[in-house]
Amino acid sequence: MAPLITLTTDFGTSDAYVASMKGVILNINPQVTIVDISHAVEPQNALQAAYIISTTHSYFPKGTIHVVVVDPGVGSQRKLVILETPSALFLAPDNGVLSYIIREIEPASNPTTDSAAGPQQIQLPKRAKAIAITNPRYWQQTVSTTFHGRDILAPVAAYLSLGTPIGELGEKLNSVNVFSLPQPYHDSKGNLCGQIIHTDHFGNLITNLKGTDLPEGKFVIEIGNQKILGLSQYYSQKNGLVAIIDSNDYLEIALKDGSAAALLGSKVGDKLILREE
Amino acid sequence: MAPLITLTTDFGTSDAYVASMKGVILNINPQVTIVDISHAVEPQNALQAAYIISTTHSYFPKGTIHVVVVDPGVGSQRKLVILETPSALFLAPDNGVLSYIIREIEPASNPTTDSAAGPQQIQLPKRAKAIAITNPRYWQQTVSTTFHGRDILAPVAAYLSLGTPIGELGEKLNSVNVFSLPQPYHDSKGNLCGQIIHTDHFGNLITNLKGTDLPEGKFVIEIGNQKILGLSQYYSQKNGLVAIIDSNDYLEIALKDGSAAALLGSKVGDKLILREE
Amino acid sequence: MAPLITLTTDFGTSDAYVASMKGVILNINPQVTIVDISHAVEPQNALQAAYIISTTHSYFPKGTIHVVVVDPGVGSQRKLVILETPSALFLAPDNGVLSYIIREIEPASNPTTDSAAGPQQIQLPKRAKAIAITNPRYWQQTVSTTFHGRDILAPVAAYLSLGTPIGELGEKLNSVNVFSLPQPYHDSKGNLCGQIIHTDHFGNLITNLKGTDLPEGKFVIEIGNQKILGLSQYYSQKNGLVAIIDSNDYLEIALKDGSAAALLGSKVGDKLILREE
Repeated sequence: MAPLITLTTDFGTSDAYVASMKGVILNINPQVTIVDISHAVEPQNALQAAYIISTTHSYFPKGTIHVVVVDPGVGSQRKLVILETPSALFLAPDNGVLSYIIREIEPASNPTTDSAAGPQQIQLPKRAKAIAITNPRYWQQTVSTTFHGRDILAPVAAYLSLGTPIGELGEKLNSVNVFSLPQPYHDSKGNLCGQIIHTDHFGNLITNLKGTDLPEGKFVIEIGNQKILGLSQYYSQKNGLVAIIDSNDYLEIALKDGSAAALLGSKVGDKLILREE
Repeated sequence: MAPLITLTTDFGTSDAYVASMKGVILNINPQVTIVDISHAVEPQNALQAAYIISTTHSYFPKGTIHVVVVDPGVGSQRKLVILETPSALFLAPDNGVLSYIIREIEPASNPTTDSAAGPQQIQLPKRAKAIAITNPRYWQQTVSTTFHGRDILAPVAAYLSLGTPIGELGEKLNSVNVFSLPQPYHDSKGNLCGQIIHTDHFGNLITNLKGTDLPEGKFVIEIGNQKILGLSQYYSQKNGLVAIIDSNDYLEIALKDGSAAALLGSKVGDKLILREE
Repeated sequence: MAPLITLTTDFGTSDAYVASMKGVILNINPQVTIVDISHAVEPQNALQAAYIISTTHSYFPKGTIHVVVVDPGVGSQRKLVILETPSALFLAPDNGVLSYIIREIEPASNPTTDSAAGPQQIQLPKRAKAIAITNPRYWQQTVSTTFHGRDILAPVAAYLSLGTPIGELGEKLNSVNVFSLPQPYHDSKGNLCGQIIHTDHFGNLITNLKGTDLPEGKFVIEIGNQKILGLSQYYSQKNGLVAIIDSNDYLEIALKDGSAAALLGSKVGDKLILREE
């Protein structure tokens, strides 16, 4: 399989930041294929990047190298890490940006305490391996304090794509930082409660409820001041708001030919309730 | 010629949707080159995507595989099709998104009845071949109801790029759905009338009048409440509004160092008149 | 080293303009790798494109072909040029879009007279070579008057990537047009003065002061109605505004977890003063 590197950042595409990373990579490995995941992560929103990379990595070939750079702490003492999972390599600052990836490997690894204060250190799941990137031999000769994506992560990704063993690149880590991801729960009346974890380009509202979380019988979804009766099979099935199991198995609220986010005025963190009938 | 796949969608680039399609494609054919045409088609605007793909496909190598995904009916009974023309393959929902491509092959194929209600079924032009994509053997193992771009069109495009014959992928179709594209006409006073069919990034207004539609003598163009005297050869030829034959042979209204769309307050569908002098 | 072409334009990514250039290039050289630098240059802002290409080209492999298309004079008598530097080839209209590149090669080449009226002709630095692109043999068969990026620069770049000698493509030039780039200066009280030359995606304000321009002792930076005490080592070092030497060695004003541009209401051209203490 040809080597493949993906890039997910909050850099936008108006400046030359992403291109500089690609130049560095292609200088080291001219044969590698580079794919942009998204560069429109909200500035400094590590949790949003965590969601985005989690919904796409499984569609890439085994062994793909995913570089995720949302890094407000660049230049400080925060670590840069390589996370090796059974299917891929992830390069990122150790700031929670890989939280969904780590929960996928080990669902029990999600911290339950409130993490409004930021990510928390947890034991690394057994099926993963992590390295703190500390060997400057594989970095750009001059390393800035403001752009480790270009000066450290890009060259390290390129050397990995050439077959450099991850052990060469730094020291083993036994713990990583993750966010406490919002979990569905049942309220005092037994109703399943969830929240919006992402709003997409169409204004579709993606929730933290998975297909398997849903009750088998009939239910009504309450979100904002609206009620949605049961699930639809596809977006255009009926007019108005629909609830649907989306292509990543999340419950999603959508509006036929429109934006559910605009109609409901809803945003990430807002709550929804499933009331069984 | 190395295989080439292009992507035109209304997915935007902030989510991972486009990247997931690329991952699926590269998983099946790691050697293929993928080029983004545009992912900024207005949500659900199949006619806009139809214009965009029509203005670029001829610059790509013969045999290029163009995937166009503007698909509000995803998951419903609408068909997914492969259209084979003398120069390329187009994969898309059968919802009018290939209307300009089909009119290029056979100008007479444009329905004349009003199509405000949407696309209409027409006989497939003789120089084209069409297939309904129905063979799940070439799809992702699990097919969602909300993302056939990733689960059906991407893998089918990848297998086509590997040389899979189109006949393998489904059943022959004799008809396709197209929009009635706006045609130039002469009003009761004999003046040529057209309309705006696209506004570009610069605010240039592209019209449905082709270079060959224009009168040979002098004329004045009336658009909004402005008059433009004759054609200019290039954008910077004079200050103010210019009318120009653009790089796709459409009559275009532009503003030197500015946006004609903003100055005129014009939008797609607005009318212009050419008055001969 | 595999051939590499980069693209920097003001075309945006919503239309098919960039993709058409890629189609033309891949038609001529299917093996070439194409990298987007930015397509979000403000329409007609050659100086902004000049800054953007100058901050990224050095990260690409030696011999990379950089195509820069900000070309309001397209179709007029303005020249299209190939600039060969010790490290790369640049293809662009001769309208100042390569000003920073030329100053890098020869700092003394910056015109000192005010250039509000636009770029000025200067003698080509000795370490560079320039060609006026005049040989239509390497262009598209039909050349529009509105899109030389697609019809001239794209095919010329593709032929260069195949090894066509630059002398084949036109005639030698001894002069090029450049903008007078703003230089730091000392005011009557001996304070170092600079100005903002770029605002990036994060709202960071990049100035024309380089690391080596700064005084060795303590200083206060005055910008807008704010004062910033000395330099920080990294963005998150303290709350509020920080001054930092950025990844391209420019003095940059940033705001922790926010936009300095929004806080200060500052824009390109605004002045800052360094007062030594």
